[in-house]
This record gives sequence, C-alpha cells and structure tokens, in this order.
Amino acid sequence: MNTNEKALLLHEKWNGKLEITSKSPVKSREDLSLAYTPGVAEPCKVIATDKEAAYKYTMKANTVAVISDGSAVLGLGNIGPYAAMPVMEGKAVLFKEFGGVNAVPICLDTQDTDELIRTITYLAPGFGGINLEDISAPRCFEIEERLKEILDIPVFHDDQHGTAIVVLAGVINALKVAGKKKEDCRVVVNGAGSAGVAITKLLLTYGFPNIIMCDKAGILSKSTRGLNWMQEKMTEVTNPGNETGTLADALRGADIFVGVSAPNIVTPEMVASMNHDAILFAMANPVPEIMPDAAKAAGAKVVGTGRSDFPNQVNNVVAFPGIFKGALEGRATQITEEMKLAAAKAIASLVPEDELNEDNIMPEAFNPKVAELVAEAVKAHIDPKNS
Amino acid sequence: MNTNEKALLLHEKWNGKLEITSKSPVKSREDLSLAYTPGVAEPCKVIATDKEAAYKYTMKANTVAVISDGSAVLGLGNIGPYAAMPVMEGKAVLFKEFGGVNAVPICLDTQDTDELIRTITYLAPGFGGINLEDISAPRCFEIEERLKEILDIPVFHDDQHGTAIVVLAGVINALKVAGKKKEDCRVVVNGAGSAGVAITKLLLTYGFPNIIMCDKAGILSKSTRGLNWMQEKMTEVTNPGNETGTLADALRGADIFVGVSAPNIVTPEMVASMNHDAILFAMANPVPEIMPDAAKAAGAKVVGTGRSDFPNQVNNVVAFPGIFKGALEGRATQITEEMKLAAAKAIASLVPEDELNEDNIMPEAFNPKVAELVAEAVKAHIDPKNS
Repeated sequence: MNTNEKALLLHEKWNGKLEITSKSPVKSREDLSLAYTPGVAEPCKVIATDKEAAYKYTMKANTVAVISDGSAVLGLGNIGPYAAMPVMEGKAVLFKEFGGVNAVPICLDTQDTDELIRTITYLAPGFGGINLEDISAPRCFEIEERLKEILDIPVFHDDQHGTAIVVLAGVINALKVAGKKKEDCRVVVNGAGSAGVAITKLLLTYGFPNIIMCDKAGILSKSTRGLNWMQEKMTEVTNPGNETGTLADALRGADIFVGVSAPNIVTPEMVASMNHDAILFAMANPVPEIMPDAAKAAGAKVVGTGRSDFPNQVNNVVAFPGIFKGALEGRATQITEEMKLAAAKAIASLVPEDELNEDNIMPEAFNPKVAELVAEAVKAHIDPKNS
Repeated sequence: MNTNEKALLLHEKWNGKLEITSKSPVKSREDLSLAYTPGVAEPCKVIATDKEAAYKYTMKANTVAVISDGSAVLGLGNIGPYAAMPVMEGKAVLFKEFGGVNAVPICLDTQDTDELIRTITYLAPGFGGINLEDISAPRCFEIEERLKEILDIPVFHDDQHGTAIVVLAGVINALKVAGKKKEDCRVVVNGAGSAGVAITKLLLTYGFPNIIMCDKAGILSKSTRGLNWMQEKMTEVTNPGNETGTLADALRGADIFVGVSAPNIVTPEMVASMNHDAILFAMANPVPEIMPDAAKAAGAKVVGTGRSDFPNQVNNVVAFPGIFKGALEGRATQITEEMKLAAAKAIASLVPEDELNEDNIMPEAFNPKVAELVAEAVKAHIDPKNS
C-alpha cells in the first residue's frame, strides 16, 4: 500500500484526527456543579469585570484557531473549506504533538476578504492566537495585516512566516557550511506568492542587501507589468540594480536560490551559472525545482527541499508549534520581526556546529528540544510594548 | 470552601477545561506523512469532488460548535463573549462526557443578529451541528430560524429546546404520578423568554390544549401591549379564552405550573388556588419560584426544580448530549419536533413505572443509558427527507 492509500485509510479510521476531551472527568454531582452550573458562574463573573482573567480561567491561554478559507490548500489550489479540513486538522495535530498547544481547525465558507476579516475578528475572544493557513495571495497579505491591527492576540500566516523562518534558519546554517557572508550574497527568490514574499522580507530584515524576486514572467523589476500590490511593493526593496530578464538571468552569479514555485524549472546549466558553492532551497512539493543530486552535480554546495526523503528538509513543523507556544506563554500581542528572527536563529542553533555539514543544516523535527528552544527564543524577544 | 470558591480554584488549575488531542500519535516521519503532508492531500482531493466525504475523513461527523454571543449567560445576563467562555467550555465538557460528542466552544464578539447569522454560516463547514447557547430573546428565535433555513446541519438552541424537552419529560411522568390527562390540564408557563416560548411550543405539540403564558406584566393575551414578535405570535396559539390578569389569576384552577422566571414569585396561596394534585416545575436558579417544601405544604403533588439538592431536577444534561449524538449518528439535517418529542418520551421512560413517584420523575443524569436511549429515539425519528 502506498502513502496515499494509507493516508486515506487512516483518515477514514480516525474519522477526524482530533478529539476534544475534558481535562477533568465529570463523575459526580459535585464535579458537575464545579465545571458547570452553578459553580461555573464564578469565573464568568470575574471575567465580566476583568477581561484579562480569561487567560486564567479559560482555554484562551493555550489555544489557537487554525483558520483557512480553502483558497490555496497545499499544492491543490482553491478546493474550498470542506476539502481544506483534513489539512487544518493535521495542522492542529502538529500544534499539539510538537508544541503542546491546543488548536481548533476552522474552515470558513467565504473567500471575501472583508467577510473573512470580520468573521475572524468575531471569533477571537476564545482564542489566544490566530494561525492563518492556506489563504491565497495577495488576499492573505491584507487579511493578516488588517487582523493584526484589529486584534490584541497574535495573528500569524504560517504559509508566509513559518516558511520564511525555517528558510532563514536553513540559510543561516548553509552560509556557514558554504563559507559565505550575507553581505556578499546575491539571493534569488523564485515564486512571488505568500511564501516568496515573506521569505524575501525576512531575508531583508536579516540583512541580505541584494535579493532578486522572480515569478512566472521572470525578474520582478519596477517596470514589470501585471504585478499585484504586494509584488509592486516588493520591487521597491529588492532588485537594487532594477534588473530585468528571466530566472536564468537572475541566477547568473547568484549565491543563493530559494524556490517556492514549480517542479523542474531550474536546470543544471542555471546552477552551473551561479557563484561557487551555491546554496539552493528547492521547495516545490513534491517535485522540487531541481533534484538535489542534479544540483550537486552542477556545482551546488548545499541543497534543501521540502521532502523528508532528502537531506535538509525545510519543514514548518520546526517553527510554528514553538512560535505559538512562546507567544502564548509570554502573552505576546503580536509576533514581531524580532521574534521571527529569534525563532530562525534558535532553529539554526539546534544543529551543533560540529555536526553542521552540507547534508545536515536543519534540526530533526522530532527533537523535543526544538519547540522548547524556539518558544524560549520567542519569549525572550517579546517587545514589552506588545505584551 | 464553598462551591463558588472551589469552582474558581478548579478553573484556575485547569486553565480551561478542554484539551484538543490527536487521536493518533505522530511519532515517526511516516506518521507525519500520513496525518499531514503529503498523505493528507488524498482525503482533501476526495472531499473536493464529493463534499459528503467530509463526514468520512474529518471530525465533522462527530463534532458540534457550541456558540454564544454572551448576551444572556446563565442568570448573569449580558456579560459578553469573554465571560461566557467558561459556560461554553463546560457545555463542551458535558457533550463529551455524557454523549461522546466533540464540542468546540466559540464565543462571538458581536451581538448583531445579521452578523451572528453570517458568521455562524461561514463557520459551519467543519461542524456536524450547531448548538446555540445563551443568546438573548427574541434575537435567539430569529437567529435559530434563519440558520435552520440556511444550513444543512442541525441547529439547536439548547436554552430553548433542551429545556423544553426535559420539562416535557418531567411533565409526562408527573401526569402519571398525579393521575391527570393532558387533555384536561390547564397549564401556566411563567417567563416568556427563550425557554418559556420553547416549552410552550413543545407542550402544544405534545397535545396540551390549554396553556396560558405569563411574563412580568401578567397573562399574555391578544390585547397585551409591549410584546416582542415571538410573544405576539404565541398569543395566537395559547390562552384560548383570551384571559387577562396576573400570574395569580392564571394559576387559579391550573393543573401545571412551569416557571422559568424569577425567585419566590409563587406564593403558597397561589399554589393552594391551583387544581388538586398540582404539578409545579419551579426552575428559576438557584432560587426557585417557590421552594418545594412550601409548594408541597400548600397542596402540590409533584415539584421539580433546576437544583440537584432537591428531588426531580430538571437538567438539560439528560437531553442535549443524546440528541446531538443521535442527530449526528443518523446524519439528520434538522432536529424536528418529532425528534424532540421522541427525546422527551425516551427521557421519561428512563424512570421505570414501578419506581415512579412524586419524588422520582426524572432519570439520573449520570445513568450512562440516558444519552444512548435518547440518541436511539432521536435516530428512529429522523425524517428521511431531512437526512
């Protein structure tokens, strides 16, 4: 039986992957009178006079909502809220198993930006954070930005920031292995959707001075037509030489390639045209932009993919559980750029210097220290103004 | 330590009464590839082509949303969505512990009727049913009615129908104990809010021909001013003689009193003015409309309250877990009047005829047979057109 068949069988067997259980059994009339009426009125009364007490007496303290509209699910596209549910349940499983965070999967039956923002705002009281998931670009940018303005709890679009954090962690370690400095690197990010934009922004924040973004039509420059508002905004902070051309043009002399795009679009010739000891993150899934062996044969030093059957898997699961664990424990009201940088550095640091090599730049997802260390790093970087 | 102090301590200890856990542990890369990517794409693809498959591969099959806007919480009034959360969590605890049903507590930060309807409609895809809770009248009537029209999953306002079902169950058994026939009974329902309206409707459906509703201003008649639209509607099907007057007037000669109103508003004199072997459900909480001993001393035959420290506790927990269990298992699209009647009769039948007496008309909430039997009764009465 292959993975797909096994996955179907398991989903059918589980009939939903999550269970919602009571922390304290209700076996007697007294249990009932404490967990429910009349006793339950007491915490209600306290919260009614002090909203903050919700963090003391309800699950808000340790629960996030995993919210999607089903508009951009995995590589499957706009499959809608019903079909998105297994992914959101899966995400909730990972929140709990890796970070000890309760997560409620919620798939919304609207794809209107204003309606989504309004609905999520209304939903917020019971949750300590909002993890947005699989919402198509450029809507996802506006939805996240406006929710961050409205809500007093962290809002985090994992497809953007989770991916960006893990890529940066990989880049930090890859630079060491390749003996490169960020100041000297030409970086090419291919795919100007939610992940590509967020990766570029975080790499800029980290200090890469020279990043070229590409999309299907080639290099994004100030003269490129047909860009969405976010892509236009990105041309103001990337591509300092205002170059134009194809992905192949962009890659010539580049040190780092980050692909969140399509299978097999990077050729060995393109890799050979890159600077020596090139670093590639070819994260199209399941078939990467170029297979690792082909990239290595063409001269690449370090290659990461989204796949678990190759070395250097770039997997969000090393980021989001720890990030929300830290944000919730530290009662952050936002997940800031500083917290994201701290998380990336913490993830990178989980590969000890003496074990770092071209096939070992990412920490093992199942290392229980990952979420703990990421959470500590995030907590240590909560801006007191935002908590 | 009293109940209130214990309840506060327990809520603080639990820091939220619910936990969201994975049914299957994620301990290996293979586990991860089945519960999450890439395997999770398979159930997504199936659901994308067949929405019904959501019941096979996601938690929708056995999960309800417990939704409130915090506008009418317990006896506390409009305390808002944050303070309502402990009650919704408690309700979710009871759904699981008594009915094996997963329930997600959701407190919405709007009290606008249209916004609530829209938000709940958007939320629906991941849920197999919607349990509305603690929403003020008359908004609750419109919200429920319109959601029932829009959604293809059961929508059930427990404050209305759960209460009505349990009261009817108690009434069925009380009639036997008092040796009365529904056809001959004069029934007075005091309190024309959500519970009072729903109780009256279900008693009408069950076949009581003569019901008088009262509220703060006395008997509801066709000439009463200041009624809301639902109360006006109720005057068309109640009060056949179009009587006017006070609660005391209404109770004169009555066989059954159902109070969902205020403490101590029924006097021994009023009870003495009722028909012989009167039946009283005095459900104001925690202080009933009249204390059972006072009512008995004044001539009542059977007295039920909402309290667990008196005989005949009228407690929704014997209804809603089994009702949703049955509706979900039978894949009902609505909870119809027939299903409610069947549930009430099932609950009544749980007190064996030979154990039935004036102090034993309600089944024990902790009897594990309750939810099972209620679920079976509900399933047996699902209209094939509605499933």
